[in-house]
Amino acid sequence: MQTNKQWLLVSRPKGEPGVENFRLVETPVPEVGHGEVLVRNHYMSLDPYMRGRMDDRKTYTVPQALDQVMQGGTVGEVVASKNPGFSVGEKVVGAFGWQLFGKNDGTGLRKVDDAKVPLSVYLGAVGMPGVTAWYGLNGIIEPKAGETVVVSAASGAVGAVVGQLAKFKGCRVVGVAGGAQKCTAVVQEFGFDACVDYKAGNLEGDLARATPNGIDGNFENVGGPVLDAVLGRMNAFGRIAVCGLIASYSGAPIPVNRFRSVLDNRLKIQGFIVSEHFDVWPAALEELATLVASGKMKYRETIAQGIEMAPEAFIGLLKGRNFGKQVVKLI
Amino acid sequence: MQTNKQWLLVSRPKGEPGVENFRLVETPVPEVGHGEVLVRNHYMSLDPYMRGRMDDRKTYTVPQALDQVMQGGTVGEVVASKNPGFSVGEKVVGAFGWQLFGKNDGTGLRKVDDAKVPLSVYLGAVGMPGVTAWYGLNGIIEPKAGETVVVSAASGAVGAVVGQLAKFKGCRVVGVAGGAQKCTAVVQEFGFDACVDYKAGNLEGDLARATPNGIDGNFENVGGPVLDAVLGRMNAFGRIAVCGLIASYSGAPIPVNRFRSVLDNRLKIQGFIVSEHFDVWPAALEELATLVASGKMKYRETIAQGIEMAPEAFIGLLKGRNFGKQVVKLI
Repeated sequence: MQTNKQWLLVSRPKGEPGVENFRLVETPVPEVGHGEVLVRNHYMSLDPYMRGRMDDRKTYTVPQALDQVMQGGTVGEVVASKNPGFSVGEKVVGAFGWQLFGKNDGTGLRKVDDAKVPLSVYLGAVGMPGVTAWYGLNGIIEPKAGETVVVSAASGAVGAVVGQLAKFKGCRVVGVAGGAQKCTAVVQEFGFDACVDYKAGNLEGDLARATPNGIDGNFENVGGPVLDAVLGRMNAFGRIAVCGLIASYSGAPIPVNRFRSVLDNRLKIQGFIVSEHFDVWPAALEELATLVASGKMKYRETIAQGIEMAPEAFIGLLKGRNFGKQVVKLI
Repeated sequence: MQTNKQWLLVSRPKGEPGVENFRLVETPVPEVGHGEVLVRNHYMSLDPYMRGRMDDRKTYTVPQALDQVMQGGTVGEVVASKNPGFSVGEKVVGAFGWQLFGKNDGTGLRKVDDAKVPLSVYLGAVGMPGVTAWYGLNGIIEPKAGETVVVSAASGAVGAVVGQLAKFKGCRVVGVAGGAQKCTAVVQEFGFDACVDYKAGNLEGDLARATPNGIDGNFENVGGPVLDAVLGRMNAFGRIAVCGLIASYSGAPIPVNRFRSVLDNRLKIQGFIVSEHFDVWPAALEELATLVASGKMKYRETIAQGIEMAPEAFIGLLKGRNFGKQVVKLI
């Protein structure tokens, strides 16, 4: 009999999470009942939003429950099925969380083809992060050719897709990332016009030099000083899509000092959650899959090996240690 | 020969403006040339936006020039005309600024009827402040019946209109104003459901009690702690129209601490300037004039007597000493 391994959240972090907030348990692999599907997960996704759910506070979803399996996206293979809609061997994206096996009645499972797009990429550029990029850019920023778009966390799973999509639209695209290595890749691999290293100590000046015509659109993943620097460069009628504020996830809220730019420049700032816009998913996923399969859309992954590594990899993600999409390889 | 009196801006204030920033000069009343109209202003408007223009910084308009007549809205009577479109005795709204007489070729002059709406009100509820209220509410907040709308500077020229329009739409309307007297009037005269006195020392608690179902729309005139209190009560998909940030006009920028609410609640925040939305003016002015003429829309005015009082009245406006629309009576 096979054994399942699961990571539970056992306590809520104050500030930065630590490995002590999680516990790895072994449980029997569940039996498949009538209408059910059992999936062996190949990869599990680690995403910044998970930090928000670890707090016991009102947000857009209920908090992650204590002593329950950490929730999250997964991609894997059907290994047992009593559901006529699924056959053993099919690859499916699901949300089975931090565990080796997942079982349900097929709800929310999406079959995927790993012939042209590697399985793990369905958790990244051709998955939730990719659609997040697509929606924030096309649904909120709506950039026109020639406009300048700034993307924070530019080397991350979402940011890299935002920048490439904006380049395809004819924008000047400037990334913000942490460290010279990430910045080099943002320009050379993902094709951004420039990238500002916020760790280099001259964020405001470097951003000004990289955006000589100001900023028309901002895809914001970070907040804090990065957002303030952007606000200081926004043009009239600029749009800011607020996708994440990772700078403040594990500590006290970081004030926004240049809010007056909203008035002076008649900005639109809009927060969004991609799971509330399922209507755009099919079209976005099709476009992203085509771009990745054709090689036009580049991506990077940081792959932690083995479910045991999940908490450590997640903590590293919150500290920006990953490069591109952070996944855990389970098989 | 009659004499014109004009207030010039002679120096830029650091922080709060003082009377020393202005100088009153006497000049001859201008001659009317071919195609021109001379207007004797009856009232001049004082508005918070004027403070922004006194700084030498990039905003949505060019700064007020030094040693020139302070710009601003006026309403008065045609006293000489060599323009076939205007006859002596007609009442017109214009933008002749802080002076007794104004002359131009008729551009931007709007004839008004003071039979049912008093002349001064064309500078308030049936003028720029009224349309500002109308646009922010209908163009950005778009409230539905049953939603809760919070209006800061609720007893001001704009805020009082916002609240009454939102009440007509079936919203719960909560004002924020400074002082018990203003708050009483906001509820009793303007018909708001509640009003929070931000000077009473318990802004957050009082706002929470006044908004038991949270806040769906916010018409923001103030910023600072008022905006932060509102951000802490916003519901999912709330809308904030940023019309003014008077709390920070004369000093250092005041940080926004609860920006994370934008993400947690998927808020839309939008800054606007009513002069960029001239397409809505005719419909808005017609609606507002009808409401005022029928007595459904209430308004209050603070009237300074005589052009000599303009700087002092303006300084008082920035400190919240006015109640309702601040005008200067010139005749």
